[in-house]
Amino acid sequence: MDSAVKIRSGAEVRRLARTGAFTGQTAGQAPDHLQANVVILPAAHAQDFLLFCMNNPKPCPLIGLSRPGETGIASLGADIDIRRDIPRYRIYHDGSLAQHAEDITPFWAHDMVTFALGCSFTFEEALIRAGFGVRHIEQGRNVPMFKTSIQTIPGGVFSGPVVVTMRPYAKDQIPAIFDLCAKYPHAHGTPVFWGDPKQIGITDLGSPDYGDPVDVRAGETPVFWACGVTPQAAIEAAKPAICITHAPGHMLVSDLRSDVPPDISVGMADLQFHKT
Amino acid sequence: MDSAVKIRSGAEVRRLARTGAFTGQTAGQAPDHLQANVVILPAAHAQDFLLFCMNNPKPCPLIGLSRPGETGIASLGADIDIRRDIPRYRIYHDGSLAQHAEDITPFWAHDMVTFALGCSFTFEEALIRAGFGVRHIEQGRNVPMFKTSIQTIPGGVFSGPVVVTMRPYAKDQIPAIFDLCAKYPHAHGTPVFWGDPKQIGITDLGSPDYGDPVDVRAGETPVFWACGVTPQAAIEAAKPAICITHAPGHMLVSDLRSDVPPDISVGMADLQFHKT
Repeated sequence: MDSAVKIRSGAEVRRLARTGAFTGQTAGQAPDHLQANVVILPAAHAQDFLLFCMNNPKPCPLIGLSRPGETGIASLGADIDIRRDIPRYRIYHDGSLAQHAEDITPFWAHDMVTFALGCSFTFEEALIRAGFGVRHIEQGRNVPMFKTSIQTIPGGVFSGPVVVTMRPYAKDQIPAIFDLCAKYPHAHGTPVFWGDPKQIGITDLGSPDYGDPVDVRAGETPVFWACGVTPQAAIEAAKPAICITHAPGHMLVSDLRSDVPPDISVGMADLQFHKT
Repeated sequence: MDSAVKIRSGAEVRRLARTGAFTGQTAGQAPDHLQANVVILPAAHAQDFLLFCMNNPKPCPLIGLSRPGETGIASLGADIDIRRDIPRYRIYHDGSLAQHAEDITPFWAHDMVTFALGCSFTFEEALIRAGFGVRHIEQGRNVPMFKTSIQTIPGGVFSGPVVVTMRPYAKDQIPAIFDLCAKYPHAHGTPVFWGDPKQIGITDLGSPDYGDPVDVRAGETPVFWACGVTPQAAIEAAKPAICITHAPGHMLVSDLRSDVPPDISVGMADLQFHKT
């Protein structure tokens, strides 16, 4: 299927991903539907990772959580099969990216827990609707991402730097952008910093740690948001035997409206895995 | 007025504080009403402090914000006069505690901005209702508070360590306590750490940086929550010419139910102060 085709609903994106008919990036698909970063871990690591997310709501806004072994997340959509409904996955072994897959059924284990985290597409759609351009979209690139000198609050074995995205804006636009993004705490919310990148440990805006560089024009200030790649850096450091995530840009598309923070229906007590 | 008297509503606590008839601590007053930590700063520091709060929602959950010079916070209660409605205030000059007051009208300036932050009373009431004791309340003491080796995400001139409170629990109670507290993200939410205090830079549970030590009994694990004293440490470091806060334990009592996260009605753009 041509990836330029526009898909209208989260259910349709998931159905097409499940059958292998859609393996593309999800930006711009199912507009106004909440999209999510996804991290899948064995139950043994799930309590630590839940703590890590709750400790770091700016980079890791938890918007959905499964019980161990459960392949659906009812709060995010009808009939989700998390093993097949994301267009493209990454498989990590011992913290290292080992391979990509479009179906993780062969890697699934009976105690795996799925975490869904809010994603920057949500506030980017809002910025564009409000007339604020988003440079990397205008330039047809991936958003530039940088590891910073800011540290997360550890959660068990998970810790590491806060990773940020950068979008340039005129300084006088920043208060209005801040207030707009404040409406999306479930999608990284307000920017965490703007100004001299060196103050947060970034030495070269032209060399992002992930993604592509974008132009910062005369009179513009780089503005930084906490980023959903932060858990990936923590996973690389914690080295769980297996971890599965979405591939960058290939998100889980939910049935929910992107402007409403979703309810989280299960918690830490539900993560205690009992073999059956 | 005898401080053992029980006051039923937030409006009544504020009315009695305003007239000087009530100058006591607010724990246990107006049960089920949302109480708030309060920080009052001149407009010149308000954008930085708003950024600091938004960057650190665990220690600094923003639940109310005034415009510069505004003495009310309509979203938290009818006819609030923030200069008189808190039973007891602290006045800081250049980051140092200079004096206490029960009425800050003499210190008020035409550009001051009030920040209201969620408070641990909210989840403590919930813990007690659910049958989990709260040790410092049982022992008739102030909660023990500790500076940690965990750093906040800076917000302009404001930065510093995350301050935590400690309450001991049996290890098998922690998942249920975690899930209960997850319902109160506007009041510090879930604990950030439990276990060996040295892992977060605390060397002696018997010597808290603020408040009183409490007993940790055999078989109990110390459990730590992010604390509303965190901004106080940041203010001591940033040394604004003037800053006014509530006195510890003497909170702003709102008209709102404590279990519902309140709406924040103004943002950064509203903090741009224009002299009139």
